[in-house]
Formats: sequence, C-alpha cells, structure tokens
Amino acid sequence: MSVKITFVPDNLTVDVDADESILQAATRAGIILRGACGGAGTCGRCRVKLQSGFVLVDDQLYRSDEAPSVFSCRAHPTSDVVIEIPPDARLSEHQVLLDSQAQGRLEAKDEATVPPERPLYRVSVVEMSAPERDKTGDDLSRLRRGLEPLIGGSDLAVSTGLLRELPARLRAAGWHPRCGIADYEPARLVFIGTAGAPYYGIAVDVGTTTVVVQLVDLETGSTVATRGSYNRQAAFGDDVITRIIYATEETDGREHLRREVLETINALLDGVLAETGTAWQNVRACSCAGNPTMVHLLLGVDPSYIRLEPYTPAANHWPVLSASEVGLRVSEDAPVYCLPGVGSYIGGDISGGLVFSGAASTDGVTLFVDIGTNGEIVLGNREWLIGCACSAGPSFEGAGVTCGMRATEGAVEQVAISPGGFEVLLKAIGDVRPVGVCGSGLISGLSALERAGVIDRSGRFSPGLNTPRFRIGADGREFVLAWASESGSSRDLVLTNADLQNLLRAKAAVFAGIQTLLRSVGLGKDDIEQVLIGGGFGRHLNVRDAVAIGMLPDLPPERFRFVGNSSLGGARLALLSAADRTVIEATARRVTYMELDETTPFMDEFMAAMFLPHTDIGLFPSVKD
Amino acid sequence: MSVKITFVPDNLTVDVDADESILQAATRAGIILRGACGGAGTCGRCRVKLQSGFVLVDDQLYRSDEAPSVFSCRAHPTSDVVIEIPPDARLSEHQVLLDSQAQGRLEAKDEATVPPERPLYRVSVVEMSAPERDKTGDDLSRLRRGLEPLIGGSDLAVSTGLLRELPARLRAAGWHPRCGIADYEPARLVFIGTAGAPYYGIAVDVGTTTVVVQLVDLETGSTVATRGSYNRQAAFGDDVITRIIYATEETDGREHLRREVLETINALLDGVLAETGTAWQNVRACSCAGNPTMVHLLLGVDPSYIRLEPYTPAANHWPVLSASEVGLRVSEDAPVYCLPGVGSYIGGDISGGLVFSGAASTDGVTLFVDIGTNGEIVLGNREWLIGCACSAGPSFEGAGVTCGMRATEGAVEQVAISPGGFEVLLKAIGDVRPVGVCGSGLISGLSALERAGVIDRSGRFSPGLNTPRFRIGADGREFVLAWASESGSSRDLVLTNADLQNLLRAKAAVFAGIQTLLRSVGLGKDDIEQVLIGGGFGRHLNVRDAVAIGMLPDLPPERFRFVGNSSLGGARLALLSAADRTVIEATARRVTYMELDETTPFMDEFMAAMFLPHTDIGLFPSVKD
Repeated sequence: MSVKITFVPDNLTVDVDADESILQAATRAGIILRGACGGAGTCGRCRVKLQSGFVLVDDQLYRSDEAPSVFSCRAHPTSDVVIEIPPDARLSEHQVLLDSQAQGRLEAKDEATVPPERPLYRVSVVEMSAPERDKTGDDLSRLRRGLEPLIGGSDLAVSTGLLRELPARLRAAGWHPRCGIADYEPARLVFIGTAGAPYYGIAVDVGTTTVVVQLVDLETGSTVATRGSYNRQAAFGDDVITRIIYATEETDGREHLRREVLETINALLDGVLAETGTAWQNVRACSCAGNPTMVHLLLGVDPSYIRLEPYTPAANHWPVLSASEVGLRVSEDAPVYCLPGVGSYIGGDISGGLVFSGAASTDGVTLFVDIGTNGEIVLGNREWLIGCACSAGPSFEGAGVTCGMRATEGAVEQVAISPGGFEVLLKAIGDVRPVGVCGSGLISGLSALERAGVIDRSGRFSPGLNTPRFRIGADGREFVLAWASESGSSRDLVLTNADLQNLLRAKAAVFAGIQTLLRSVGLGKDDIEQVLIGGGFGRHLNVRDAVAIGMLPDLPPERFRFVGNSSLGGARLALLSAADRTVIEATARRVTYMELDETTPFMDEFMAAMFLPHTDIGLFPSVKD
Repeated sequence: MSVKITFVPDNLTVDVDADESILQAATRAGIILRGACGGAGTCGRCRVKLQSGFVLVDDQLYRSDEAPSVFSCRAHPTSDVVIEIPPDARLSEHQVLLDSQAQGRLEAKDEATVPPERPLYRVSVVEMSAPERDKTGDDLSRLRRGLEPLIGGSDLAVSTGLLRELPARLRAAGWHPRCGIADYEPARLVFIGTAGAPYYGIAVDVGTTTVVVQLVDLETGSTVATRGSYNRQAAFGDDVITRIIYATEETDGREHLRREVLETINALLDGVLAETGTAWQNVRACSCAGNPTMVHLLLGVDPSYIRLEPYTPAANHWPVLSASEVGLRVSEDAPVYCLPGVGSYIGGDISGGLVFSGAASTDGVTLFVDIGTNGEIVLGNREWLIGCACSAGPSFEGAGVTCGMRATEGAVEQVAISPGGFEVLLKAIGDVRPVGVCGSGLISGLSALERAGVIDRSGRFSPGLNTPRFRIGADGREFVLAWASESGSSRDLVLTNADLQNLLRAKAAVFAGIQTLLRSVGLGKDDIEQVLIGGGFGRHLNVRDAVAIGMLPDLPPERFRFVGNSSLGGARLALLSAADRTVIEATARRVTYMELDETTPFMDEFMAAMFLPHTDIGLFPSVKD
C-alpha cells in the first residue's frame, strides 16, 4: 500500500511504500535532513513534526493531534501525512561561493599555461593512409598506425559501437578523422567524427559532507563552471564509519548510498551544464577524488572491511570504469578515473592534494592538513611521506553543529566577543546578515568564547555567566551569538554545549594526528618548515584562532599557507594531465600509512588535546603569552 | 495492420506487419528458405504456394484460387493466408553427422594430450596474502600479485560486477580464491568463487552456408558435444556478396543479418547445452572462425567496403568483445575471440585452418584448399604463404543445387552411371535411401555424367539422349538420379542444366584460384608436395572424381589429405591455447593476399577451367588417359 507524504514548508508530496522511512522519502524529494547516526535512531538530528495523519515508530503508533516530534529515520507513515521539517533538521543546499583567492591560485597553477597536453580525453585529427589494393591494411590497423604518434606503444581499445560504424566514419572523414581518445592504459578510442565539437571533463571532489563538481574545457584547460552542495548521503550518516555501517547493515544500504552520491553529482552536473548551455554528450571524462569510503560507495564497491581490523580497502588504485557503468550522466563512454588512495582512510583526495599543493615535492619538511569530515594529515617531503587520518567529524563543514553551515554567503567566518560585556561582533561572508556559522567561524568563535571567559579551558560554560546570551535551550545550555532580529534566518544563532564538545573533539583529533606523526618520525613542531592547509576553509580561517584553540601547531603565521580545495585541485590535475596522473599514482604508493585506533599513541594524544589549547601548555608558547 | 501467416506442412502461424515479406516471416518462424539472391526477386529459389488468402507482389494482388506460386521474398500478405512451402524451397536443418575420421584426427591432434595450458578462459586457485595492519596492500593489489604467476606481466582488468563484491568473495575464499581469468591482453578477471564449477568454451565455425558449434570442456580440453545447421542468414543471400548487399541496402539489413547468425549460433548452443545438461552460465569463452564478411556481420560491423574496390575489411584483427556485447547466450562476461583474417575474403577460418592443418609449418610447398561457399586457397610453407579467395558458390554445401544437401545422413556421396544403359548406382551416407546429394556426391555425379556421355565436356546435356531419366522439367532439362520410389524423400532426385552449370562454375573457380597462385610464384602443379583439403567434404570426397572434373590439380592420390572442418579446428585451437592464438595471429599477418577480380589473370584462368576437366587437357594427363 502506498501513502502520500506532504513536506512543509516545501509543499512537496511524494508517494511512499510501507518500508520507506520519512527520512528516505525526504531525501528522495530532495530535502536533505541531518541523519548523523545513519538511521540508527540515536542522534535525533532528523526529528520532524507530524502535522496530520498517523505514523508508526518502532511498533508504536503516533497521531497528529499529539503533535509528536518523531525521528524521521524510524518513522513510517500509515496514512497520508503532512510532515513539517524544522529548520534545524535540514541540511540546506547552497550555491558554492567560490573562494576567489584559492581559485586564483588554482588558475595560477593550472590555467596560465599552455593547453593541456594529455588530458584524460582528447580529440586529435589523425593522419592515416587510405586503403590500397592487394595490401592487407584493414581500416582498424591503418587507424592504429595513424594513432601511434598520439598514444605511443599503448594498446588501443575500441568501443563496440564505434567499431561497428568504423568504415563509414573513416571514409566520411576522408582518412583524416577527428579521433576522441580516452587516454589511459590501454588507450580507448570512443569517438570518430568530422566536425569539431567542444569537449569537456568534470573534476569531482566527492567529500563525505560536501561534493563539488567542476566543469573543465579539456581543449583549453579552462574552468567553465563550478558547483557544490551537500552530499545527499549525509542524510544517512555524518561520517564515513556511519555510512559504512549503513551500507553494510541496512537492506540495499550500499546501493542506496551509491544512488545518493550519484544523484548529488548528477544534480550538480545538471546545474553546471544548464548554467553554461553545455550538452551532457560533450562531457567526455570524469576525474573523481574522495576518501576511500566515498570512492567505494560511488563505484558501488563493498566498503565493509575498511572499518574492520586490519582496515583494508577493496582497492587503492582503481580500474578506470565507464560513465555508464558508474551511472554518471555524461557521455556513456567517458572514462571515470578515481584518484588512487593510500590506505583505509586516506584516499585520492589526499594523494591528489599532496601533488596539487606541492607538498609531495618540497625539500623541507611539510605538514599537509586537509580538514573535512575526516582530518587527514601527511608529513614529509620529496623523499618521504607519512600520513594518518583522524575522525574530526563534520563540524568544520557545518554539519555537526546546531548553527553550522558551509562557507557560503551569510556564513559567519569571524567572531569577536568583548570580555565582561559579552558584546558579540560577527563577520559574515558577503557582509550580509548571518544565517549560520562556517568552520572558520566556529574556530574563531571557540577561541573568542574562551578568551572572553564564556567557556573554560575544558570547553565548558563558565559558572555564573551573567548575560541573557547564556541560557538553557531545548538542547541544554547554549550561548546566543546573534539574536533572531539580527540574523538573516529570523532565528537565534546559538552554540550549545554539545556543539562546543563536538568542536573540541574535532580540533583535538586534528592536533593529536599531527603530534602522532611528528613523534613517529622523531621530529618536533619546529622542524616543520611549512604547513599547507587544504579543505573547505580557504582564506576564511584565521590561523591565530586555530593555533589559539590548539588545533594547529604553534608556529609563526608565515609558515602557514592555504591551498584551497586541494581534493578538487588534484582531481583537476588528473583530468588534465597524464604526467600528473603518473605523479599522483606514485605519490599514493609513496605515503607510509599509520592506522590510528585505540592501540596507538594517538588516543593519549587525543585526550591530552581535549583542552584549550592543550594540557601541555608548553606546546603553545605564543598562546601562553 | 497485422495479419496471420500459417505455413504448411509445418502448421506454424506467425503474425506479420505489412512491411514484412513472407520470406522474413518464415525465417522468423524457423523455416529457412532458399534466398539465393538475397531477396532481390531474381533467383526464384524461395518460391512458395498460396493456399488461401491474398498476397501483394510488386503492386500486383494474387488470390489463392489462382493457386499462384510466388517469390516469398517479394510477397506481402494482405489478409490472413496459408502458405505451402514446397520441399525444394526449404533449407532443411539437420543434426551434424560427425565425420568420424576427421573427428578422429581432431582428437589425435588436440585431445590425446595434457589438459590445455592457457585456454581463453581458465580457473585457477590463487594463493594471495591476507591483509596486514599498517600495510597498504588493498585487496585488489594483493590479488594482482597472487595472479602474477598465472598472467605474467599482463595488465589485469576486472569486471565491474566482480569489483563490487571483491572483498567478501576473497574473504569467503580464505585468501585462496578460485579465479576465472579471460586470458588475453589485458587479462580480465571475471569470476571469483570458492566451490569448483565446471567451465566450458565454444568453438564456432561461422560459415556462409553452415554453422557448427562445438562445446569444449576447458579444463580437460575434451569435446563435449558438436552441432551444426544451416546459417539462417542463407535466406537472405547465397554468398557473401549478396549478404553484403542485403546488409547495406535493406533497411536495418545489417542488424537483421546480425540477428539471424546470432540466432543460428544460439539455437545450436541451446541444443548442445540441453543435450549435455550444461548451464549456459558455465560457458565462459567463445572462439569464432569465419570469413571476413561473416565476422563483420556477427559483430554487427559495417561490411560495405569489403565488396567495393579496393576491398577493405573494417578489421582483420578484432578486439575481444564480451558475449553480452555480441549477443551470445553464454556467461555475459565470456570473451568472444574472433580468429584474425588476412584480407577482404580470407578470414580467420583460413588462418586457423592453416595452423590446424599444419599447412603453415611445412617444409615443402603445400596447397591448402578450403571449399565452402567461397573457395579459399593458400599456397606456401613455413617460410612464405600466398592466398586468394574465389567465389565457388554454395553448391558443394548443398545450397546451390536443386537436390543439394549437407553431408549428413541420406546424402548421396558417390554416383556411378553405366555407359549406354544409364543405370545409376548411388551411395548415400548411412546407407539409407537417398534424400539429396552432398558436395562430394555432386562432384562424383558430374564426373559420372561426363564419363557416361550424359553431358559433354562443356557440361551440357548431350544431344539425343535416349532414356526416361532425361526429361524436360519445370526448370528445363534435367537428369533423374533417383526416382521418387527409390528415394527417401518420395520425390525424384534430379540434376538440372542450371545445377550442372553452377557446379561447373564452382569447380572452375577453385581450379582457377589454384592456377593463379601457382603462376604468381612461378611454380607448377608438380611442385606441390601435398594438398590439404578443408571444408565440409571430409572423407566423402573422391579425389579421383575431383581431379577428373578438373577441380583439383592432377597429382598422385597420395599427395592429397583431408583435414576435416579446419575452420572449426582452428577455432578450437584458439579456444584452448594462448600459444596457438599467437601462431594463428602471426600466420594471418604472414599470408600475402591476392585480390581476384576482373583485372587479374584469374578471369582468364576461370574461363579456361569452364570445361571438363579443362580446355588445356595437358594439365590433366591422368584424365586424358
């Protein structure tokens, strides 16, 4: 039996069967809820209100006249229902506000050069010989010889559809065919034509919380458009562990998550195509960077063993599949290249980021920190690299915190609080009214709250706070950063006690990872010549704040450099250059991987870092001052 | 509007649309008619009788009370109709009667040896290491290392479906997985399991007129079952030229012919699978040998340019496609290997046949003659090979002659006629009543008719024949080989004047090809140390008869050897051995190809050979005696 769910205030109606939860139905309708626990019914982030009708939750029936607030992941409607989505339950979608400075750097590295030499797909006019009487040179072998200057000694594969039409196509082109080649081993011929059509590729940053798609002109190497949004999978788990559990334990969970991330990418793709008037048929190559779990789920590969001792991915170096096999809505023959990973929790986003940022080719010791939902940390130089991943949670991407949001227009990126008076000064991206707080704003806020004495060094609210900004809300104690009247969302922007603990854990995980790596190679913080920061922070992060809360090591500010979205940058390099693909693959093999779990020194480091800035204040001389 | 056609005596009814001819409908119903001209409406071989209803033929309406005999290729029913198929119009399907002697030779060469070393698909238990903590050895890369002893330095491709389930499969197998590998470059992993299932391959001889499918156990190398039938394409053209025209000029002609040959192979496959209780899923590799046109049509590749100057195939060496791409009803991942061809009319059936028969590795000069619908002839030894193809027509396969049939039970294989008295003695395969005459019987008959004075040396009926066996039939002058009362078909077995001319042309084409090759390398017949005869003749051909009519050169009988179905034999070698695949590929590249058309000496040779045995009787000293 199928019933209807109407979601308000969106006024979207979907038909559902008995086995579909309200959370699943909402996702299908394009409403991304917060499913931090992956539908386990424990986190309560996905709570919605029943306005009319009946729902069943764990064998108990709820009626709308009780106006219950139910966990949408556990609730199944038994009649037509109207469901109200509270603003807090929603992960809103935004256009990506391009970080122009980081973008400038991208352009400086990639675009101010000659056209790409060997992108993942390219079109070249091939000079081949005409057939001759009594010569046994069939069409395909003469074409192969013509292609030799382009693909060298690589074998040549031909798509079956093209093989079938080969004779007529070559003759129509008068033996000077324009050949479209997917350039990997073996090279694959996927297009033969006469007229020149433009051809594009996409670089995709497949993040646990956010996904970015960049459309690139493969002929010129220039960026055509970029869009990002929340990963629709986020409705089924905050972090990779929860996703793996969902994929493994829910019926069809893996296939479900595969479809969600595909839908995320395809929707972004539709956006960039519509925006630029580009035909999907002309998108001929895809390069995807993500952590190992994200790549497993995108390709539909069983991720179970990533989270079970000894933490083994199905593959680090992936076969190149076709877009039609993967399910991406681009030219069906388009190769899908997934950047190679290092180990269970360090993926192609990091291999690519190390190359994109230059971290893999420095003389001096470089610390590369990519802070997304996981924090991945790599230490080393051109000769050695060692890396680890620590579960930072999605707080810095705006998903683990009540007022969190991505670094887009209206996101608070800086917080100042007057000591004593508790006056709050917020700076939002785009200089508009604040609608939420992004990662850099949260770090700034944590630092400001501590300096102003609102919280103590353990991250808890100080006793006896005498300000209306401090109050007991629905989720316990909280501090109001902006009143509804000042905000762009007509709601109070608050940081709750739980938010603060989430942030503290996130920063502690990052710092503990850095310390673990340093100790494993017998170095101290002062041996680090530069710190490269990837991830979504971009130019908004204030390094002083990050050092003040003890997330990053206490080094002079000039040693820090932001590299923007280095995962996207790496995917873009791989899309545009065979040489860079080779370097990225070699880099992935070169990183020594440290697994961090309860049996390692990491846990001790983590506990020591659950303090502002640290239990060992000697590590932060500049903060002590 | 759709109407019904009921075919009698089969009592099969099919629905047809206005644009489908009776010929097409019959084929769809599994009744294979003789469409020698490819539906051009010129040969009249596909004539059927209208028993009831109305048909439209080239804008003229025919009624059943006129009992018209219509060309089924041009006739479209305009009401429900009953169509009678005369026995003559039908290409009947037979079980292959295995030529036990040729089969014995096959077994001697292939089966009395050790199990195949590197068949096109094989299963091996792989020893791989278990994952270890802090090692970055993902499942796929450890598996790859385990496979190295099996596939050497070849790249490894993995089917997407298998990749997705890789982790669980490897663990279920306790790191000793049974791996199924399609063994070509790159090697392709298509199966991982624990339990041992049998695995098979098929060798397919894709002939213009007949198709043979052999099921082979890939583990032991032994033949499990063999079946053959007419190629369903034969309803749409007798020879490759007519088929190419049909493919090129009829709407969807190419796709139509592709489906017909696929249906032929799949039906034979169903037969061998049912007969042996084998599951199609366990058929894991296909090796196909055919002339270039047959392979183009099987793969769906445009064959147009094979028949247009300078006669260029799309490919001689084919990419290995998957069974699902090709449409064969075996395991979808099964590789389909098509044996490489030499040039426009010499295909993988010959490359394979040269290796199978040993012709490619002799010290002395060998003449290899494969007489099917085309006659392909190769001259040479281990150091040089030169070849040509001459259109012999399908007479010797029983399709171009009124009473023709394949060499199966009931086929006349030997004819003797008493001079003067015109008593006829027939020997049929299986020592049963004769139902038709196969290729060797036709050669024997032509020779006997000439010796008995029924025909003269130009192949025409002698004047003043005084015997009731000579008469004027529906198709003109004809000679009765067996009366209906003596035959197994309750019809008179006759050879018509047209039949005799077809046979004369066929034998002349073969001999002219041989002469053309000999002259091109400056050799004479006596330089030939052995003649290897492939094709469907098997042990039934009497070499004296073939020399007597001037089809084969006049050499001592001991220089002739039959190699059976060498196309099937070649396909089988390629199925079972990587080393043989390499040799076959090298052989295909090694043959110098001569294109025979009106601009070559071939036409003069052909005209000179249109005589029994030849205009230059000096070439046949043993016949002159």
